[in-house]
Amino acid sequence: MSLAERILAGETRAAARLMRNIDDNLPSAREELRALFPHTGRAMLIGITGPPGAGKSTLVDQITASFRTRGKRVGIVAVDPTSPFTGGAILGDRIRMNRHANDEGVFIRSLATRGYLGGLSRSTADVANVMDAMGMDVVIIETVGVGQDEVDIVRLAHTTVVVMVPGMGDDIQAIKAGILEIGDLFVVNKADRDGADRTARDLASMLEFTTFTEGSWRPPVLKTEAQRGTGVEELVAAVLSHHEWLEQSGEMDRLLRDKHATLFKTLLKERLFAEVWVPLQKHGDFEVLLDGIVARTRDPYSAVEEIIEKRLR
Amino acid sequence: MSLAERILAGETRAAARLMRNIDDNLPSAREELRALFPHTGRAMLIGITGPPGAGKSTLVDQITASFRTRGKRVGIVAVDPTSPFTGGAILGDRIRMNRHANDEGVFIRSLATRGYLGGLSRSTADVANVMDAMGMDVVIIETVGVGQDEVDIVRLAHTTVVVMVPGMGDDIQAIKAGILEIGDLFVVNKADRDGADRTARDLASMLEFTTFTEGSWRPPVLKTEAQRGTGVEELVAAVLSHHEWLEQSGEMDRLLRDKHATLFKTLLKERLFAEVWVPLQKHGDFEVLLDGIVARTRDPYSAVEEIIEKRLR
Repeated sequence: MSLAERILAGETRAAARLMRNIDDNLPSAREELRALFPHTGRAMLIGITGPPGAGKSTLVDQITASFRTRGKRVGIVAVDPTSPFTGGAILGDRIRMNRHANDEGVFIRSLATRGYLGGLSRSTADVANVMDAMGMDVVIIETVGVGQDEVDIVRLAHTTVVVMVPGMGDDIQAIKAGILEIGDLFVVNKADRDGADRTARDLASMLEFTTFTEGSWRPPVLKTEAQRGTGVEELVAAVLSHHEWLEQSGEMDRLLRDKHATLFKTLLKERLFAEVWVPLQKHGDFEVLLDGIVARTRDPYSAVEEIIEKRLR
Repeated sequence: MSLAERILAGETRAAARLMRNIDDNLPSAREELRALFPHTGRAMLIGITGPPGAGKSTLVDQITASFRTRGKRVGIVAVDPTSPFTGGAILGDRIRMNRHANDEGVFIRSLATRGYLGGLSRSTADVANVMDAMGMDVVIIETVGVGQDEVDIVRLAHTTVVVMVPGMGDDIQAIKAGILEIGDLFVVNKADRDGADRTARDLASMLEFTTFTEGSWRPPVLKTEAQRGTGVEELVAAVLSHHEWLEQSGEMDRLLRDKHATLFKTLLKERLFAEVWVPLQKHGDFEVLLDGIVARTRDPYSAVEEIIEKRLR
C-alpha cells in the first residue's frame, strides 16, 4: 500500500513518514500529496500567531483540549520561521508536546525553517493537507509571529488569531496596520498582568479606525489567561462564529481561491526552478558561468535571460 | 543618458531613481543593473544584524561616522524584513537618517518587505550593487535580525556583525548555534548596562565550543556603547581585520562564489516563474484551473507538472 492509502486508512505512522518525506523534499512525496488532495478541504484551519513569549503554545494547548471535549480530532502544525534568534520557541513546543502525547485524537508536528525550496508556507500547507486527509477535524497552525514568512503561513488558515500580551501599550502605536489586517480575532493573553485592559482597549480603538463595510467581519478583542484556561471557551466560540460568518457571507470562497492561487504559484515556481537548475549543475556549465560572474566578465542578468531563451518554449 | 551612465557619472538622483525602479520591479531596472554590474565588486560590504532594540541604528551611525573621518564614502541599506510586529524599526531608521542627511558622502536607502518576487535578499543585493557602482567605499547592510530572511540578507556581506544586548543571558543558552554561525564579529551593545560582562562572557564561552580549524577566523566579542561612541573604533578595526583575513586566507573567493551562486539562483527562479506565469494569467486558463482545484476535481501537483511539460524543452 502507498503511504497515501495507509494515511487514508488511518495509520498515523504513515502520516508521520510522509511528513518527514515532505521535509526531505522527496519527489515521491508529491505523488502521495497528489493522491491525498481529493480528500482534503474538510478540516477547519485555525492560525495562531503573535510575538515570542505571548503564550501561544499554552493557548494552543487549551484550545486543543476544548476541541477534544467536543469530540473533535485536532492536528497541530507548530512552525518556527525565525531561526537564529528565537531558538527557544521550538524548545517550548517540544516540551509542550508531552501533554497530548497519549491522546490519539491529537497529532502534533513541528516545522523549522531551513531547506525548504518552495518556502515554509508551502511545506506547512502540505503538512496541513496530510492532517486534513487523515481526518483531523481541526488543524491549528501555530507560528511565532515576527515576519513576512509567518504572515504567509497564517494566511493558509480560515481564521487567524493574533495573540498579544499586556505591556505592549507603548509599542502598539508604532505597530503598522499589518497586524490589524491579518487578525480575524485578537487575544490579549496573560490578562492577569498589569495593563491588560489598556492593551485590549488600545487594540479595540485601533480596530475602530479601520473602516468596515456593511456585512464585513469585525474582529473581536478577547482576553485570556491560558495558564488557567480563563477565556478559552469564549475564544473557541469566537473562532466558530468567524468560521460560520465565512461560510454564510461567501467570504470562504474568496479566501480559498486566494489561498490555492498562492500555493499553486509557489509550487510552480519551485518546480520550474528545479527542472532548470538540476541539468545546469550536472554539466558543469554553472561553474564556468559562475567563474565569469565572479570575475565580472559575465553578468547574471543576461546569463539568466539566455537560459530562459534556451529552456522555455 | 541611461540611468546607469548617470549613476556612473556620480549622479545620486539617478541612483535613487533606479532604486525606486528596483522596488517597483520594472523590467528596465534589470537592463540598468546589467550595465552597472561590471563596475561592482569594489565596495567593502558590512552586514549588521541583531534583535529589535539592540541599538543597531545608532551603531551603524557611529560606524558610518568613523569611516567618514577616514575619508570613505558610505552607503547604508536599512532592511526591515519583519513586517507586522516591528513597524517601529523602520520608524527608527527614518529618524536616524537626518544625521547624515547633509553629507554627500553618505547615501541611505530603506527597504521594506512586501512585494518582492525574488525575495528581499535579491532586492537588497541589487541596491547594494547600485551603491557599489556609484563609488561607495563601504556599504553597510543593516537588518532586524529575527528570521531566515535576514540571515539571507547578511550573507550578502563580507563581514557580518551580530549585535546583542545585556540581559539576554537567560535566553542565550536556548539560542541555537545559528547565531554563532552567522557572526564574524559579536558586539554587546549598551555595555554600560548590568549584565554586559556576563553576556559577553557567555557568548565567548559558547564560541569556544565551536571547533575552529587551523587558520580559521575566530570571531571576537566586543563591547560598545553606541550612544556615546565607546568601543566603535575597536569595532571598525575588527571589521577591517576580518576583511584582511578574508583576502589573505583565500576565504574571500569562496565567500563571493557562494554569494553569487545564491543570487543567480534567486534571479533565475524569479525570471522563470514570471515568464510562465504571465501568459497563464492572460488567457484565463488559470481561473479555470483554480476552479478545479478549489472543487478538488483537479490537483495542483499534476497541474504544475502539465505546465512544465508544455513550457519547458
